[in-house]
Amino acid sequence: MIKLVLLRHGESQWNRENRFTGWKDIDLTEKGVGEARSAGDLMQAEGLTFDVAYTSVLKRAIRTLWNALDRMDLMWIPVNRTWRLNERHYGSLQGLNKSETAELHGEEQVLVWRRSYDTPPPALEKDDERYPGNDRRYASLDASEIPVTECLKDTVARFLPYWSEEIEPAIKAGKRVLIVAHGNSLRALVKYLDNVSEEDIVGLNIPTGIPLVYELDDNLKPLRHYYLGDQEAAAKAAAAVASQGCK
Amino acid sequence: MIKLVLLRHGESQWNRENRFTGWKDIDLTEKGVGEARSAGDLMQAEGLTFDVAYTSVLKRAIRTLWNALDRMDLMWIPVNRTWRLNERHYGSLQGLNKSETAELHGEEQVLVWRRSYDTPPPALEKDDERYPGNDRRYASLDASEIPVTECLKDTVARFLPYWSEEIEPAIKAGKRVLIVAHGNSLRALVKYLDNVSEEDIVGLNIPTGIPLVYELDDNLKPLRHYYLGDQEAAAKAAAAVASQGCK
Repeated sequence: MIKLVLLRHGESQWNRENRFTGWKDIDLTEKGVGEARSAGDLMQAEGLTFDVAYTSVLKRAIRTLWNALDRMDLMWIPVNRTWRLNERHYGSLQGLNKSETAELHGEEQVLVWRRSYDTPPPALEKDDERYPGNDRRYASLDASEIPVTECLKDTVARFLPYWSEEIEPAIKAGKRVLIVAHGNSLRALVKYLDNVSEEDIVGLNIPTGIPLVYELDDNLKPLRHYYLGDQEAAAKAAAAVASQGCK
Repeated sequence: MIKLVLLRHGESQWNRENRFTGWKDIDLTEKGVGEARSAGDLMQAEGLTFDVAYTSVLKRAIRTLWNALDRMDLMWIPVNRTWRLNERHYGSLQGLNKSETAELHGEEQVLVWRRSYDTPPPALEKDDERYPGNDRRYASLDASEIPVTECLKDTVARFLPYWSEEIEPAIKAGKRVLIVAHGNSLRALVKYLDNVSEEDIVGLNIPTGIPLVYELDDNLKPLRHYYLGDQEAAAKAAAAVASQGCK
């Protein structure tokens, strides 16, 4: 029985302020750190352990991973960071809060960007300080790989090569894998694993800080999945994410 | 100008208790965490930055690295963990404090183990709970690679392949490298870089938590080296390590 565990980072400062975060490297709040530690405790209590971990190059995910590994006494396992697990890039919305966005673009348009699978928000200009090409952590990317905005479809497209080239082979080699990432990069994975439709995936909300266990067969087809811990709390957390809108 | 930075982990609980730690996975004290954070601040103030970091599979080194990277806003850089950067394995001395060791083996013998380059302490038996072969983090090692005791010469021998196969090529490819490790694995590197004699290397003491900068030419030959921060404090810290004896 293969178990793959997904964990969405705990609360960040901009989650709290309800601002589009995307690739902006915003840190966890104290509550977010607590969520990460609780997630580690839940996995430990479940008897889970890991051989390798994958995360993004954003500190809210990395710090979530660090805290979970610390609680599980697994600080020594290899950790792979990749931009392909980053949050969806929100283009020119990045940094705006919900009311600022509605004021600029209208409520209806904001709903389209939130609920559509393939309509990206307005792109960043390359001279915008938010353009990732200005950040040295993305210096090794081809210019064509650096997003100026993304819809969920784009996030899926840039995540999947990493899944098939790095993570899938690790699982097939018998490694027990933990992935700590973001609402939309984890949606990308769940869409692929469970073959979720484009309509349904935009409405699927993964709560923060609650480990999501996938049981897979030898071909990595999902047999079932479940959240660890209090199931009611997980459902509530997912609903809260849905009502919040901004990721 | 190539700069390579070495950092010895901050104070651990067993440093404080003056016990032989070796491969035992003992955590930092609060003071040790503070040393790590200060080291990050010192490197930041010096204008240093890094593209990749190397550390051991022991949490006192990993936590030192995490705290330093956090202070430098470099949580996103790749981190490579290797058992080859672990502390020297102290064999059956591991876990004993200075007076217990002297009582068991005599003061004179303890001095030999501390000051000799090539005399290892008594080996562990393989059914000893301290035998690293019983720890899954070393499961990928060949049985012949798993130490039951080490003299400094042994630590040098198992570190150097990692230097030449992993770290040296990274530096030659233009990566700015930070190595966070242990008293004896860093001695192994310093011995190699500066071609220190066997007699002299056992007396060379690298203080905890103070970044040691090596400036190298294009062939990775050292031009000079220096500690960051208060030079007098670095000298005192090195002297304190020398008088303490146990690593």
